Amino acid sequence: VSELAATAIKSDLSALERVHALIRPEIICTPLLSALDETTKIKPECLQRMGSFKLRAACAVLQARGAENFSQGVITASAGNFGQGLAYAARARGLPLTVHVPETAAATKIDRLRQLGAHVVTHSFAKWWEIMSTRDAGHEGHFIHPVCELEVIQGNASIGLELLQQWPAVDTIVVPFGGGGLISGIALAFKAAGRDVRMIACEAENSTPLRQAFDAGRPVQASRSASFIDGIGSEGVLPEMWPLLRDLVDDVVVVTENEARKALADLCKKHHIVAEGAGAVAYAAAARLGGGSNVAAIVSGGNIDLARLSDILSEDLRP
Amino acid sequence: VSELAATAIKSDLSALERVHALIRPEIICTPLLSALDETTKIKPECLQRMGSFKLRAACAVLQARGAENFSQGVITASAGNFGQGLAYAARARGLPLTVHVPETAAATKIDRLRQLGAHVVTHSFAKWWEIMSTRDAGHEGHFIHPVCELEVIQGNASIGLELLQQWPAVDTIVVPFGGGGLISGIALAFKAAGRDVRMIACEAENSTPLRQAFDAGRPVQASRSASFIDGIGSEGVLPEMWPLLRDLVDDVVVVTENEARKALADLCKKHHIVAEGAGAVAYAAAARLGGGSNVAAIVSGGNIDLARLSDILSEDLRP
Repeated sequence: VSELAATAIKSDLSALERVHALIRPEIICTPLLSALDETTKIKPECLQRMGSFKLRAACAVLQARGAENFSQGVITASAGNFGQGLAYAARARGLPLTVHVPETAAATKIDRLRQLGAHVVTHSFAKWWEIMSTRDAGHEGHFIHPVCELEVIQGNASIGLELLQQWPAVDTIVVPFGGGGLISGIALAFKAAGRDVRMIACEAENSTPLRQAFDAGRPVQASRSASFIDGIGSEGVLPEMWPLLRDLVDDVVVVTENEARKALADLCKKHHIVAEGAGAVAYAAAARLGGGSNVAAIVSGGNIDLARLSDILSEDLRP
Repeated sequence: VSELAATAIKSDLSALERVHALIRPEIICTPLLSALDETTKIKPECLQRMGSFKLRAACAVLQARGAENFSQGVITASAGNFGQGLAYAARARGLPLTVHVPETAAATKIDRLRQLGAHVVTHSFAKWWEIMSTRDAGHEGHFIHPVCELEVIQGNASIGLELLQQWPAVDTIVVPFGGGGLISGIALAFKAAGRDVRMIACEAENSTPLRQAFDAGRPVQASRSASFIDGIGSEGVLPEMWPLLRDLVDDVVVVTENEARKALADLCKKHHIVAEGAGAVAYAAAARLGGGSNVAAIVSGGNIDLARLSDILSEDLRP
């Protein structure tokens, strides 16, 4: 068991509530949207500032750790939603931030990081992966990992605490699986509150590291093919996270790319929210579950190109 | 001064808070979404059940009036957002509802009313307008007007009460103008709380009854040309509402259809919400106001055809 997992699993309700109280002024308590039958509800984290749940984790780290840690500035290695959230949170505190990104990162994401005042450094994918794995960027500053940080997981737990308040009768929670920080955080909140719920992780068919890890009984090398679902999927479950996931996740549902597209259009039509591909998979998986359960689907983010969104909507209209 | 206006204007804070408490279990407290500069914020009522703020008013009427009023069933004359909201609220209470609609009403709206268990009766536009004006549908039941009801206005005031809590420093509120119930309700909440704010009504260029009424000093016959912005605009300000509007509205901003389209695309891209045309006009008007103010834009609803939405998004992408 990793030290991170051993520490995280011990999070009690008061610890999680303390982190929630620290970040509350900066985050939105996202509402719970109901399907007409009232047995499926949606937690739209796409409405969070910077368009994803990651702001919760970013604020949690900066708020929970003492300012003395950040005297040399802050470092991370994500151009995606965590990088965006951390850039917002660092800017709000006047902290210099350096973001290391792979050369494959989308130009629009790098532009947005720069607009928020972050210093962006581009690397080959291999070098970037090395920085991410070793946490050594070769310069001074406090490195914050997008997933493997106690406060990241505890920040994500705030979604679980909100859900406990908003829907005490929830019994199943469906969560997109990227690195595992989101589902672990939510599961810890329910566990700490003594509430037994079924935690279902969702992956898209283009990359299924968690499904494969559960099948093999340990993290294995996974593949990842191109998809519009770019916020989740990886080359394998992070070993540091595996003990947590093995304990906290009850099942893995893999959805097809078409199911995700259909879910994305449905979220626009019925719930009036814009989800990114990764955000839509939980709703797609929830649509598969049978009745008789009270299912909450976490729509993790909404950062999608308008061109892509427009395409998906017009596709959905074809007979 | 109409009796409705005379009564509504006297609503004190405790009366409005009482109505808010009555409807709270059924409605969503919509979050306040921030633009990056933090001086413009959005109240996304498109997230409300049935996709618009109208559920607040529908629940307020049914909840505040005694059940004895409804023994013969409930009647209204709106196929639009109010009809949808009332159908939901009536179904939740097991109340039979008859909805009178003009033959011009979209088939999808009629289908949705029927799915919710409403009995729908179609009329020529002239006959429908007569029912709306006289409140006489020719059959038993309790008629509820979509705009001119004290509890409708007080139900809408709940948006103002939420806003007072969410953003005490707000100084300007921008609201789409359809019948005037929405802007009146929000203005009454701030007035009752002793908070002086600038209330700005927005219309789209295809129909500007309030702009014309302010110019003429009284309601005048207005025109209405076809537009994708179908939730607002009318042939004139309702005389019953005029005294309220004259007292409570500080200014009217008229936006172009292109501004509304641009606003709709922006709301998808930056805030991850889907607005209908009427919902987007307040955001379009807010974008016109200069800096130095704390502006809240009410996005009143999100019921738009996916085909229309897809068109607007792909247009926005053209250079």
